[in-house]
Amino acid sequence: MKNKFYNHIVQLQENLCKEFEKIDGKGKFFEDKWVREGGGGGITKIIEDGEIIEKGGVNISKVFGELPESMQKQLDTKDNKFFACGLSLVIHPKSPMIPTVHANWRYFEMYNKDGKVSDCWFGGGQDLTPYYIFEDDVKHFHSVCKTICDRHGSDFYFNFKENCDKYFYNSHRNEARGVGGLFFDYCKETSDMNIPKWYDFIEDVSNNFIKSYMPIVEKRKLMNYSNTQKDWQEVRRGRYVEFNLVHDKGTLFGLKTNGRIESILMSLPPRVKWRYNFKPEQNSEESKLLKILKNPVKWIS
Amino acid sequence: MKNKFYNHIVQLQENLCKEFEKIDGKGKFFEDKWVREGGGGGITKIIEDGEIIEKGGVNISKVFGELPESMQKQLDTKDNKFFACGLSLVIHPKSPMIPTVHANWRYFEMYNKDGKVSDCWFGGGQDLTPYYIFEDDVKHFHSVCKTICDRHGSDFYFNFKENCDKYFYNSHRNEARGVGGLFFDYCKETSDMNIPKWYDFIEDVSNNFIKSYMPIVEKRKLMNYSNTQKDWQEVRRGRYVEFNLVHDKGTLFGLKTNGRIESILMSLPPRVKWRYNFKPEQNSEESKLLKILKNPVKWIS
Repeated sequence: MKNKFYNHIVQLQENLCKEFEKIDGKGKFFEDKWVREGGGGGITKIIEDGEIIEKGGVNISKVFGELPESMQKQLDTKDNKFFACGLSLVIHPKSPMIPTVHANWRYFEMYNKDGKVSDCWFGGGQDLTPYYIFEDDVKHFHSVCKTICDRHGSDFYFNFKENCDKYFYNSHRNEARGVGGLFFDYCKETSDMNIPKWYDFIEDVSNNFIKSYMPIVEKRKLMNYSNTQKDWQEVRRGRYVEFNLVHDKGTLFGLKTNGRIESILMSLPPRVKWRYNFKPEQNSEESKLLKILKNPVKWIS
Repeated sequence: MKNKFYNHIVQLQENLCKEFEKIDGKGKFFEDKWVREGGGGGITKIIEDGEIIEKGGVNISKVFGELPESMQKQLDTKDNKFFACGLSLVIHPKSPMIPTVHANWRYFEMYNKDGKVSDCWFGGGQDLTPYYIFEDDVKHFHSVCKTICDRHGSDFYFNFKENCDKYFYNSHRNEARGVGGLFFDYCKETSDMNIPKWYDFIEDVSNNFIKSYMPIVEKRKLMNYSNTQKDWQEVRRGRYVEFNLVHDKGTLFGLKTNGRIESILMSLPPRVKWRYNFKPEQNSEESKLLKILKNPVKWIS
């Protein structure tokens, strides 16, 4: 399974980068290969200052070896050999009319003393962080998510959408990071789902990611925007930074265990502003976004 | 003591704001008073888009009531009533030739069941975060720190300078946030120092803070700088954000215990950039800064 999934994300990285380059028209991804001291490494692909994409990354990594003690505790296991691989992407568009998007799909294996797989699971998700709300766009994103989910489990969309709303939440601001999507973790063997079935789900959802996001970019890429709207985007990007550095478990785990810093922090936006107690005008488009982020919305039924 | 110290920081806030307005020439502080639900509140004073200061805050707060459980654990006490007050300032200058400065002075009291003071201490410090190294400036800052320290204890400067280097450290980058200064905490009654003596030290160091920083601003404020240098400042400000959101205990404590978010996050710089794996040219002024941040320097003997 680990080879099957790794081959999938290698192919996926190539496809996604091609699609993003195609829609951008100008920006090109450059590749940065890195090696991990304890075992494994990754391929980071970065695009900067494109026509559409201000900054983005599509990274894959495959790491293995000794599990750090802190993670042993978190996973509540005495096994200390692991393997993990996954693909992570974050796209920060230049235009505030196009939402930022994040996605991640990963596979984890634990080994017992005899080197046999003692546990394994999938995890991942995808979520949208708009600066202005176009309901059609959000509904489109969620409906692609739901269509794929429904093929694999009747409660998947509902559960994973709820997880996503709970996870991507800036509790110190009492607001969601964005308008959600899917989030799932510890997808293990159950009576309904074996590991090959989970693989099919992850493959399906990751292969269709592009369908959830690209039509939104296509629709909004030629829209005009003002400096004030760009400014709002940069202030809101500050919330993205706050979430990733204060709350995101993956980021913090990476930072505290000598992960590959630049690959982890590629998620941070290119230009960000913090202004004291900045509040949009009442009944403005900006305030509409804030209202929506206060309480998770049921985007589709 | 709590009233004496609170009166001191009230006066200090007024003086500091006056001095910063004087040197800025254009920007004015505006005042934001806030009330804390559990008891107390604060006065936040913010300056934005000045001639010299791009963003800055000089805040005082006085909070009291029930100590959150997490903090009881951290302080290893069963007492649960507390009082704390302090002044915090952060100044982010517009010019990359002027360093960012941070300072904080605080007093803490714990009470037993009978309402009597069971423990009390002072804490605080001041530190400099330059974007370009002017050795004279750093030496000036440290020598003012040392002069004051030496009046109160022969090992103060050495100890508090070392604490500062250790504390303001971005361990995930293996680099210091800046070039240090002073950092002290849990300054309690000892055989040499009683609480009134600690008060005298804190009063002295805080009253002289202006002498450690203003001459640097004065000296650098008319220096020209290029867009590339401004850009470097904005990238380096990213490290400031990373420290404050990932490592700074005060910030995290505030964010996780319903502190007054905007007053806590006034420390974040106004405009920040994250660029993938950005590295300055060899032997450039920018690379000189990085080299210095790798290992703490003994600025004065």
